[in-house]
Amino acid sequence: MAEQKKMVNDITSMDVDFSQWYTDVVRKAELMDYSSVRGMMEIEPYGYAIWENMQKDMDSRFKEIGIENVYMPLLIPESLLQKEKDHVEGFAPEVAWVTYGGHEELTERLCIRPTSEVLFCEYYSKKIRSYRDLPKLLNQWCSVVRWEKTTRPFLRSSEFLWQEGHTVHETAEEAEAFTLKVLEIYRDFYTETLAIPSVTGRKTEKEKFAGAVATYAIEPLMHNGVALQGGTTHYFGDGFAKSFDITFTGRDNKVTYPHQTSWGVTTRMIGAVIMVHGDDNGLVLPPKIAPVQVAIIPVAQHKEGVLEKAAELKSRLSKEFRVKLDDSDNSPGWKYAQYEMQGVPLRIEIGPKDIENSQCVIVRRDNREKIFASLDNLEEIIAKTLEDFQAAIYNKALENLHSKTFAATSYDEFLHTAENKPGFIKAMWCGSDECEEKIKNDTGGVKSRCIPFEEEHIADTCVCCGKPAKHMLYWGKQY
Amino acid sequence: MAEQKKMVNDITSMDVDFSQWYTDVVRKAELMDYSSVRGMMEIEPYGYAIWENMQKDMDSRFKEIGIENVYMPLLIPESLLQKEKDHVEGFAPEVAWVTYGGHEELTERLCIRPTSEVLFCEYYSKKIRSYRDLPKLLNQWCSVVRWEKTTRPFLRSSEFLWQEGHTVHETAEEAEAFTLKVLEIYRDFYTETLAIPSVTGRKTEKEKFAGAVATYAIEPLMHNGVALQGGTTHYFGDGFAKSFDITFTGRDNKVTYPHQTSWGVTTRMIGAVIMVHGDDNGLVLPPKIAPVQVAIIPVAQHKEGVLEKAAELKSRLSKEFRVKLDDSDNSPGWKYAQYEMQGVPLRIEIGPKDIENSQCVIVRRDNREKIFASLDNLEEIIAKTLEDFQAAIYNKALENLHSKTFAATSYDEFLHTAENKPGFIKAMWCGSDECEEKIKNDTGGVKSRCIPFEEEHIADTCVCCGKPAKHMLYWGKQY
Repeated sequence: MAEQKKMVNDITSMDVDFSQWYTDVVRKAELMDYSSVRGMMEIEPYGYAIWENMQKDMDSRFKEIGIENVYMPLLIPESLLQKEKDHVEGFAPEVAWVTYGGHEELTERLCIRPTSEVLFCEYYSKKIRSYRDLPKLLNQWCSVVRWEKTTRPFLRSSEFLWQEGHTVHETAEEAEAFTLKVLEIYRDFYTETLAIPSVTGRKTEKEKFAGAVATYAIEPLMHNGVALQGGTTHYFGDGFAKSFDITFTGRDNKVTYPHQTSWGVTTRMIGAVIMVHGDDNGLVLPPKIAPVQVAIIPVAQHKEGVLEKAAELKSRLSKEFRVKLDDSDNSPGWKYAQYEMQGVPLRIEIGPKDIENSQCVIVRRDNREKIFASLDNLEEIIAKTLEDFQAAIYNKALENLHSKTFAATSYDEFLHTAENKPGFIKAMWCGSDECEEKIKNDTGGVKSRCIPFEEEHIADTCVCCGKPAKHMLYWGKQY
Repeated sequence: MAEQKKMVNDITSMDVDFSQWYTDVVRKAELMDYSSVRGMMEIEPYGYAIWENMQKDMDSRFKEIGIENVYMPLLIPESLLQKEKDHVEGFAPEVAWVTYGGHEELTERLCIRPTSEVLFCEYYSKKIRSYRDLPKLLNQWCSVVRWEKTTRPFLRSSEFLWQEGHTVHETAEEAEAFTLKVLEIYRDFYTETLAIPSVTGRKTEKEKFAGAVATYAIEPLMHNGVALQGGTTHYFGDGFAKSFDITFTGRDNKVTYPHQTSWGVTTRMIGAVIMVHGDDNGLVLPPKIAPVQVAIIPVAQHKEGVLEKAAELKSRLSKEFRVKLDDSDNSPGWKYAQYEMQGVPLRIEIGPKDIENSQCVIVRRDNREKIFASLDNLEEIIAKTLEDFQAAIYNKALENLHSKTFAATSYDEFLHTAENKPGFIKAMWCGSDECEEKIKNDTGGVKSRCIPFEEEHIADTCVCCGKPAKHMLYWGKQY
């Protein structure tokens, strides 16, 4: 509470310095604090409550399609990590190594999981014998560690929370279809729950996951026109199965390798919510994941009956919504700013006059619209307003995505757009790593985002080298 | 499924070899498997689903009294761990040390949290300024690592899952009261949710937590008469606050140290459930945490209408219970053994004749009682039967606890009981570490369990040294 005074101070305007605005919001809304280990966060109650709401929603989507949760060990022996060549090359440079247990030096180094493909593979190699054991659809919620050089709260940290799903299937077709099925869960979750529109598609060879045959991604665009890889799903073919000797007896009685997938989303989704919906007054949270959906602020609370009525309202509304009553000594104005900073979708103001008229005032966080609502059917009005709110912030984000998506047919145009118009650039591509590398270097970091599932035909030739084009790509800078 | 054949093989009888019986059950019910890192478990879907049900129940109890969840970092710098002397002495010998991040040697070693007191203290030292900031009631669900020499699935492992709560209070009285409040939550959870009776009380100085002023514990007794420390709560006084410089300005405007607590329960609760309720046919799960409460087994399922009716029943009962329909090709007898092994509280058998009579047969896992139930009010009958089941297994466990609790007034009697009658021994104690040590050595491991809140007066003198007694203690061997 002593901290609260600071929270309602002005924050940096997003137009002045988006990066500072982000840090201000994260800190002043008390989502996280910095620990003494570089790049590792302390996720505070309000930030963690957002994560819990995301988890609950996502987890129920997983369970609906038969995915089961498990827990694999935190540590991976070095020899196990090395079993799949591409995978170890991708991750070895950024893992944390345990070398001592108590006072004894270990005979083999153990790394803290940066991701758990190899652990799941080891498990599957013991459990899978027959086609009757398939598919295996497992997931775990845990933390992983990647030794990042530069870190930013929620977006890139040395430790983060996530879910990682790992599945095994009889056929390549089934595994590929499952990779896309989970991508669709992610897309729908972003759309319906987080109110965040996005572009989805396949990653290029250069950008795919270490060890994958194909990587698919969901790519939302932040308010400032920078992309964020919002979630990925990977199709592995039978590569991991071969490296880890996972075999099964098929319907034809022959022993063969199964096909695998993995997929994950992380606490960086909290960063996406901040950067897509937030404004100069702080957070704006989608109702479906807001820890508090409705904040009740009594007005002239010293007057007889006000606090009683506010408490009655809180207990009544709590049956349907996540509600907080703030009956502290702070002024109503201070409280308004406080809950705006924390992105609470609706606040209810109720004072003596409102009580007399059996009404209250609902104020929307996104547009500050005031709604005078009768107490008689308040639940109905709140439910409707939360729905409108969710739709409105989605549409606003969609407009941002559309207005910041550009097409380029010549390299000059591409470079000019990259320099002057933050956002997605749609452009044709020959399919070579070299052009991706050149574009990245010439633009100071514009990378391929994905090959969308429905490619437009913008031109015949690669925007970079002029050779015949193979695909249309989305390009953009990323967090 | 290829594994299932093995699962219905006989398991070792608990009377022949309790330890082997335990391992057989854990493995054949597919609760966990061994990973390649010694002492670290792979918790399989069925085992993890039990943990999820425990978590959900416990977490809602925490939230009801205002406890909020957070996430603190996985790693602790060596210098931070060393800030509280007793604490570091207690944990340093059993932590895993990270010495490399990627290819670079770290300038300071980091240990994987064995528990997070010091991380919460570091956080609190930044966040607490005034009495208005108190109490802080935070909890986290995570995994911790302790480098154990001998390990046993769920009971003692190098990594385990748990919740750890850490609270800060204005006064010693409030903190001590909170320590007992959480202990009562644990006791009630064991009783009402896990159907496990227990003894609760204060640990001796010798057995208390490293850095605590007082440790309280819940001590259930396993079927074989061995105790298990089922959960602990610690009162820290202001010792950690002083070491970590956590201060606040009080109501009297003076700067002072707050008082702290911590408390936790772990995945070893799964071990307790197995060893309290299990029998020679496998697991027996309390309905409140059973992943499957009702298994529907169609009889003569090739006959017309049977599978349809079974599916209809499954969809109907799933509205109120956790239900699984097994319509696989395995024989009904195989399925009965399978779901007995997995401890599913009720199975429903339904065949052509049952359908004709609009009834089914319910079979209870604990006593194999058969109930012929009308399909008309089946939900009612199942709800009632699950309630009876939960009460019956609690009473059976309570009887075991009572029949294995002995009193000893002379040292000969104590030693004779310790050698011949596994269970709790109630005996008087002078209060000295020496007598605790002597008893442990003379008995091959009988340790003090706790000083119960209501001490009986069994004798005037210490059962060991004959000096005047200070307390009545529960004693017993432990896992």
